Amino acid sequence: MVRELELVRWIMERAGETGDDCAVLECPPWGTLLVTTDSVIDGVHARWTVDGPEAFGYKAIARGLSDIAAMAGEPKWAVLAACLPHDVSEEEAHALYRGAEKTGVKLVGGDTAFGPTPFAVGTVLGKAHAKGPVLRSGARPGDWIVVTGPLGGSLQSGKHKTFVPRVKEARELHERYDVGAMIDLSDGLSTDLHHILRASGVGCRIEAALVPRANVPLENALNDGEDYELLATLRPAELPPFATRIGVVTERDALLVHPDGREEALVARGYEHGA
Amino acid sequence: MVRELELVRWIMERAGETGDDCAVLECPPWGTLLVTTDSVIDGVHARWTVDGPEAFGYKAIARGLSDIAAMAGEPKWAVLAACLPHDVSEEEAHALYRGAEKTGVKLVGGDTAFGPTPFAVGTVLGKAHAKGPVLRSGARPGDWIVVTGPLGGSLQSGKHKTFVPRVKEARELHERYDVGAMIDLSDGLSTDLHHILRASGVGCRIEAALVPRANVPLENALNDGEDYELLATLRPAELPPFATRIGVVTERDALLVHPDGREEALVARGYEHGA
Repeated sequence: MVRELELVRWIMERAGETGDDCAVLECPPWGTLLVTTDSVIDGVHARWTVDGPEAFGYKAIARGLSDIAAMAGEPKWAVLAACLPHDVSEEEAHALYRGAEKTGVKLVGGDTAFGPTPFAVGTVLGKAHAKGPVLRSGARPGDWIVVTGPLGGSLQSGKHKTFVPRVKEARELHERYDVGAMIDLSDGLSTDLHHILRASGVGCRIEAALVPRANVPLENALNDGEDYELLATLRPAELPPFATRIGVVTERDALLVHPDGREEALVARGYEHGA
Repeated sequence: MVRELELVRWIMERAGETGDDCAVLECPPWGTLLVTTDSVIDGVHARWTVDGPEAFGYKAIARGLSDIAAMAGEPKWAVLAACLPHDVSEEEAHALYRGAEKTGVKLVGGDTAFGPTPFAVGTVLGKAHAKGPVLRSGARPGDWIVVTGPLGGSLQSGKHKTFVPRVKEARELHERYDVGAMIDLSDGLSTDLHHILRASGVGCRIEAALVPRANVPLENALNDGEDYELLATLRPAELPPFATRIGVVTERDALLVHPDGREEALVARGYEHGA
């Protein structure tokens, strides 16, 4: 069996992906198009019979909106490819599309098939801000590291299927604050932070006591996936009201500092799928 | 169980789809963006263990390219969402992406997951021609009806996984001939022709003897799906070297004319999924 991480890295290089949350496509002088595609598969990202079809439609598009947010883009359009069970009821099928519509983005097309494993694949198109997209590579030593909400336990609490993508907050960050780098927290803080550190060639000091937790132990706040909050670095100044400072960007090494002053390496322990 | 056709119609209306092959999105002054998304699901559109993963990657993108061709657009970029079996080999996984690359379009991103039923969902983005996209609604009485290749038996011959999308021919048609309406033949001639007739508010007379067949009976040439040839209407003039005239657009009624002069209604008997 192929190692999933290696495979996904191979694919990303092959696809010329920069490692950012969306593909960045120049359409001058209209602007810069952002494109991202995300799957929600029965038994992998949600359960058809337990979570219901509406969660599939919602999450397939909301995951993409969160990627658009990570680059501070403006969502414009989405298309939805869905695979429904052969015995799907009309109500279930409608619920799937209602879920997609609830995200608020304009659905402009799709593809519908019937097969054994239900899934929804959302492709979201957005427009980069006139100031340009925010990349993962812009963090600089001295930047504050901030997150937009409590972390951890998303799969247990159900947040992974009801989260509101931080599109508005991302735009406000980019317009009113000096953002270095940004990413959305899909793989877990420890892993997604490393994506920024690697892309920017920097390190970090995260203060364990400052990491906002969703009623979970620190370990979960650091490593659980699917929070869909923003993780950003900001040039030190005023802190946005919706953001919590959890640490600082350094020259090198990823460190976690405990309340007693003890330091340990911050290891990427989230879901490492590379994107 | 919901009736598939009704469901897909509901979805299309809900999504504000025009019924054309791609969503048409204005990005002035850059131009008009065309977007289409298509699934290839194991056991539905291809078989992972028989046709191989390369066929999944190729067909998922090629279906989209055929939709771009149907509107005479220029393919620009594609993203690929794939679900691989947990026991996928590195070679199989690479083959899937190699298949996508073989289409020639620039892959700019994707999403990779692992699950029980392999699939590939390709989303292709193109740019409409400066003359505008070709729609299904532009057929006028007196137009010639043409196709770009022999029809029928695609699932048996394997053409459905190796076809070359008619992108070049579509551009040439739009640039050098006076095209009324166009569509790609995915659901079968009898069904796809009705999509044009309905959208344009016209009828047709198809001459059975003129329909080019891929070594299949007339019935199959008329009704088999997945030919991925172009079906277009042209203002009468010179015939393109790559096109065969099979009939004429009329004011009303869809008729099939047999060699002995006998006329019958041309009924949509292809795969009616509405798109």
